[in-house]
Amino acid sequence: MTDDGRTVREVGEFGLIAALRAALPPATVADPSLVLGIGDDAALWTPTPGETLVVTADGLSEGVHFRLDWTDWTSLGHKAMAVNLSDLAAMGAVPRLVTLTLGLRGSERVADLEDLYRGAGALAAAHGVLVAGGDVVASPAGLALHVTALGETRAGRALTRGGARAGDLVAVSGALGAAAAGLRLLQAGSGRPRATTADLLLAAHLRPRPRVVLGGLLLDHGASAAMDLSDGLFGDLPKLLAASGVAARLDAAAIPIPAAVRALFPADWFALGTRGGEDYELLFTIAPDAFGPLRGAAAAIGATLTAIGDVVPVGDSRPSLLLLDANGTESAVAAGAFDHFAG
Amino acid sequence: MTDDGRTVREVGEFGLIAALRAALPPATVADPSLVLGIGDDAALWTPTPGETLVVTADGLSEGVHFRLDWTDWTSLGHKAMAVNLSDLAAMGAVPRLVTLTLGLRGSERVADLEDLYRGAGALAAAHGVLVAGGDVVASPAGLALHVTALGETRAGRALTRGGARAGDLVAVSGALGAAAAGLRLLQAGSGRPRATTADLLLAAHLRPRPRVVLGGLLLDHGASAAMDLSDGLFGDLPKLLAASGVAARLDAAAIPIPAAVRALFPADWFALGTRGGEDYELLFTIAPDAFGPLRGAAAAIGATLTAIGDVVPVGDSRPSLLLLDANGTESAVAAGAFDHFAG
Repeated sequence: MTDDGRTVREVGEFGLIAALRAALPPATVADPSLVLGIGDDAALWTPTPGETLVVTADGLSEGVHFRLDWTDWTSLGHKAMAVNLSDLAAMGAVPRLVTLTLGLRGSERVADLEDLYRGAGALAAAHGVLVAGGDVVASPAGLALHVTALGETRAGRALTRGGARAGDLVAVSGALGAAAAGLRLLQAGSGRPRATTADLLLAAHLRPRPRVVLGGLLLDHGASAAMDLSDGLFGDLPKLLAASGVAARLDAAAIPIPAAVRALFPADWFALGTRGGEDYELLFTIAPDAFGPLRGAAAAIGATLTAIGDVVPVGDSRPSLLLLDANGTESAVAAGAFDHFAG
Repeated sequence: MTDDGRTVREVGEFGLIAALRAALPPATVADPSLVLGIGDDAALWTPTPGETLVVTADGLSEGVHFRLDWTDWTSLGHKAMAVNLSDLAAMGAVPRLVTLTLGLRGSERVADLEDLYRGAGALAAAHGVLVAGGDVVASPAGLALHVTALGETRAGRALTRGGARAGDLVAVSGALGAAAAGLRLLQAGSGRPRATTADLLLAAHLRPRPRVVLGGLLLDHGASAAMDLSDGLFGDLPKLLAASGVAARLDAAAIPIPAAVRALFPADWFALGTRGGEDYELLFTIAPDAFGPLRGAAAAIGATLTAIGDVVPVGDSRPSLLLLDANGTESAVAAGAFDHFAG
């Protein structure tokens, strides 16, 4: 497309779909396994024989999950893809194919949506993922992105939330709180800040990296349960514990919260790190003797793993999540799931 | 759920998901192939060995595709499922599994959403389809339903839009225009009419029946191209012709438009039948000698098929779609695709 200033309404539904398809990297739309891609009633794709399919769907809505004055379009496409690939990573699955549906007002510039597809397509290409569908529907109230992602895993082997056992370690990848701190910077400022020392935090919020390769390592090294951190450690860990029928005791000092978060938000860095959400790191449990080899394998792909506590049996009166502070004082943690509909 | 008056905000995201799962027929959530269903980061499902996967995604947005004062919740769930199963039917695929994501304001009554799931679940169960996911996201601007549907077809054999050849017949299933007439009745009235002679038209709009079994028959009987009619005959046929690189000549008198549509809308019954949309009947092309046996097989499952014209070669100056009227006069048809973003 060279008519970059035109709107969706000007080029029409079919002109838009052609432009979006052309904005995708060739490797994401052409593959022997993709019998039929964008443009028919449905896509046709040949799964790998013997693999179990992993299916996830997630969406981003304007005003709820993003603001157009805080993100660029390429980052928005990246993030829509990332949150879905993260769900597959949390199962230990290899991502294979996505469909991407846009809900549009009609006043969007085609060039912006091409950037969105470029952002989504670049992340797809980086993980060998095919983009098989590109439907557009009207959404007068605001932009909406819906992605369905299909992955594969051998013979039904997958990480679930339900396998944690007493005696396992609780661990996380990367650092927690950067994405929430980045969001806080956007909320505090007017518009999107330019290059600053806070760039890393903004990138964590705007362009999260799904832990796709790490998810496979967790599966291969026998992690007992896993999920991705979208609602914060204190929001998500209770779900994993409930699914597994266990409790956990965490060491507050071990939770990996970046120095930049502590420095910029001295009053509530701990809340940002534990309840902020959208880190898209992996939270998992694993037997202690398996953790060392896994950590070594993760380091080889540039991923840092940190043990932050232990899985313990559920007690009659014990809260499911306990936190040990620097003074050795143990306290109960209120589950802090981000509930879209609360209050 | 017995607390029928509670809202989504009152029960919270996780209470809602549990209630919705319980509203689904057991057969749609339990099957040996469904290794892991609703409740984890993703669903795990074992495809049938040797089959090619057919993937489609479609959504309905409040105010664009439905109005809550015109539909009941059960019908809304039915329709969200139906439009996706129809896309699979148009490929000749056997539907296997869907995920259903709800975008919610938060003020919805849980009991209403349970009805929505019952409507979707009943249609899924009728076609042996599993419901593998039930995510909910915030959507302050209005209700949104996004369905992803997976089907299977043997070894990549599928109906596409691209196979029509000069000499084939153009044919449709069922009758056209009833859904558009039903919508017209809703637009004319205040609210949803009660039982009337127009019930059939309202049902066609509110509860379309996807032609799942018929799609398989089309594939087995060698239909050369097919698609489902969501944007009206004059909106959709040009897409099929363009994909196939052919033109068509239709016999106006042969287009099956119900007597009720003609009687209730004497001024524009033909436009309703050809440009009205949302019939979710199948439009297809097939060699003339194969049409008779197919029609017989379709009759055995209660489906009426009607030949409405012929596929012809593309001429240098010939329009791609010609219409022969009762007087033998031939005229060009302007492609009437419903474009969501047209001025």
